[in-house]
Amino acid sequence: MPVKVAVNGSGTIGKRIVDSVLLNKDFKLVGVAKYKPDYQAYLMIEKGIPVFVPRDRAGEFINSGIEPSGYIDYLFEEADLIYDASPGGKGVLNKKIYEKHGKPVVFQGGEDPEIAEISYSTFCNYSDAINKKNVRVVSCNTTGMLRLLCILEKEYGVKKALAVIIRRAADPKEDNRGPVNSILLDPPEIPSHHGVDARTVAPWLNITSAAVVVPTTLMHMQFIEVELKSPVKKDEVLEVLGRYRRFLLIDSARTGIDSTSKLMELARDAGRMRGDIYENSVFIDTVKIEDTRLYLFQGIHQESIVIPENMDVAYAILGLEHDQYRVVEKTDSLLGVGSLEKLIKTSRHRLKGENHE
Amino acid sequence: MPVKVAVNGSGTIGKRIVDSVLLNKDFKLVGVAKYKPDYQAYLMIEKGIPVFVPRDRAGEFINSGIEPSGYIDYLFEEADLIYDASPGGKGVLNKKIYEKHGKPVVFQGGEDPEIAEISYSTFCNYSDAINKKNVRVVSCNTTGMLRLLCILEKEYGVKKALAVIIRRAADPKEDNRGPVNSILLDPPEIPSHHGVDARTVAPWLNITSAAVVVPTTLMHMQFIEVELKSPVKKDEVLEVLGRYRRFLLIDSARTGIDSTSKLMELARDAGRMRGDIYENSVFIDTVKIEDTRLYLFQGIHQESIVIPENMDVAYAILGLEHDQYRVVEKTDSLLGVGSLEKLIKTSRHRLKGENHE
Repeated sequence: MPVKVAVNGSGTIGKRIVDSVLLNKDFKLVGVAKYKPDYQAYLMIEKGIPVFVPRDRAGEFINSGIEPSGYIDYLFEEADLIYDASPGGKGVLNKKIYEKHGKPVVFQGGEDPEIAEISYSTFCNYSDAINKKNVRVVSCNTTGMLRLLCILEKEYGVKKALAVIIRRAADPKEDNRGPVNSILLDPPEIPSHHGVDARTVAPWLNITSAAVVVPTTLMHMQFIEVELKSPVKKDEVLEVLGRYRRFLLIDSARTGIDSTSKLMELARDAGRMRGDIYENSVFIDTVKIEDTRLYLFQGIHQESIVIPENMDVAYAILGLEHDQYRVVEKTDSLLGVGSLEKLIKTSRHRLKGENHE
Repeated sequence: MPVKVAVNGSGTIGKRIVDSVLLNKDFKLVGVAKYKPDYQAYLMIEKGIPVFVPRDRAGEFINSGIEPSGYIDYLFEEADLIYDASPGGKGVLNKKIYEKHGKPVVFQGGEDPEIAEISYSTFCNYSDAINKKNVRVVSCNTTGMLRLLCILEKEYGVKKALAVIIRRAADPKEDNRGPVNSILLDPPEIPSHHGVDARTVAPWLNITSAAVVVPTTLMHMQFIEVELKSPVKKDEVLEVLGRYRRFLLIDSARTGIDSTSKLMELARDAGRMRGDIYENSVFIDTVKIEDTRLYLFQGIHQESIVIPENMDVAYAILGLEHDQYRVVEKTDSLLGVGSLEKLIKTSRHRLKGENHE
């Protein structure tokens, strides 16, 4: 019997969770909670996705030509698991509603850590999430940092880490955010919240983070410095990361891919849904080792990087699978995580900034 | 008798050197070498600046209504000191011409270090430049790093430094450069050339640098991590930097200045020529100390930050002054370095992103 899933919200994360749930035969999508009859609602109806609406707004939807499948309270009652993908900070209000229905919930990183029993990232604390009632999947940058750092901790031990995060200003759809021509300290202090947030998942982690916002929409870029507990060689580190499909190892010298824009173009060309990149995009020519110190740059696609972890965590919460590796294997093959790597590896084509007349 | 100065080139650096030389009573501007009758040439004539041109282009200038003061070979012959501010990489071709005239030359950071006897940054190696024939003032990012690191070395000793440089994509006037919407690794390797370049001035410096280019034109932003040889306190470090007018200490919490754009607006409002910021713009709320480890962000105005060092070095090359502090004092008061600090300190106004209708 597949697990019955409800998704509350259809923004950047919600709509991607919906599509992932639809791909997964272990899950059955009960439906999506929608609050406005926008084009997302139309699209979902067209794709055969049941849309549930607030009682007092049903008329509005019907007048817009959208026939709801029912009311939101029914959706939550029917589900075995709820994904809260409401705008950041709204989860805490929704939590009271979920509690009435007594259903387990996956919250997102935009919520305060206190909202859930644990904050979560698969490679760090999968087993801690088993049979938990409320789990918070940390946000995009924290997920990207933790994937890397928890693997390095396991393999070599992490003494100290530093992340300098060059953040995208807005998601592609957001035409109301800036900056247009500035480098904004966000926050104008060190540390930023990212390292603090990472410790909600990995309390052992000695990390400092700092962040700026820059005028681009495609991806974040993270500069990472790690002091490991033992000396390493570059090839070893790449071999370790290569074992995980959630790391896309990019050879800039051979492929010409040296920017977030070229990388996103690859994902679009490869037919990835919405052009998403679920993987940590590690630029391997930037992997620099000085004895026990490791430096690298990795690109983080803010819209989609948390989707694999959102899928994984359902198996833990519901006690369906205790082996994290089998869960990761399942999620990755479901979403096609790792497919871009093959494309890059077989490619002999060096991308260049082309000039058009 | 003032020193007779020739400036070869009138681009971003050249035109600023010209204006600084005009301010300085120790110097007399013989003239500027111009190769095209563009608006800069008109402007200079209007300001009473003698313009010298190649013999074979004099007619072109005259036809454009610009009366040259003479030929370039005369300009170089007449000068006691030549500033080479030609486009990066062209200095090596010009060097042969300068050598014919037997004149000392200040080259810029766009040239290879081999062009000059020494690479130079005032707070690191002023005395090494005394009576040298050819000196190279390092480029904007390297100047910004070295000002800070040489002072920290002197005060505390620097064990190891890291710079993550978030570079502006283009200067404001450059409408032919990108990226528009990308974070570009430049280079897609670690280290970048900046740390290597810093060691041409400070060979003792154990530094790693990494750089990305982002879609903005105003300033570079540098994230700096320094491991000092002894523990420090934040107040001490700020007190040390506060002694030097070439550090603009910005209190973001009080002033609301937390981005390159707000900072440049301040310089424009303050009446700085061209809105220039000669100082390392240190965001003091980002100064974070962990025992011997120091983190901070500093903004670097790529167009103007090397101008003070270009002025200083003339006094060394010509053997006019052996005390670097007196030279720095002279240059700083000449250019008004430090004037923004007073503005920020006395300001009780918190700048906010204002919404316009």
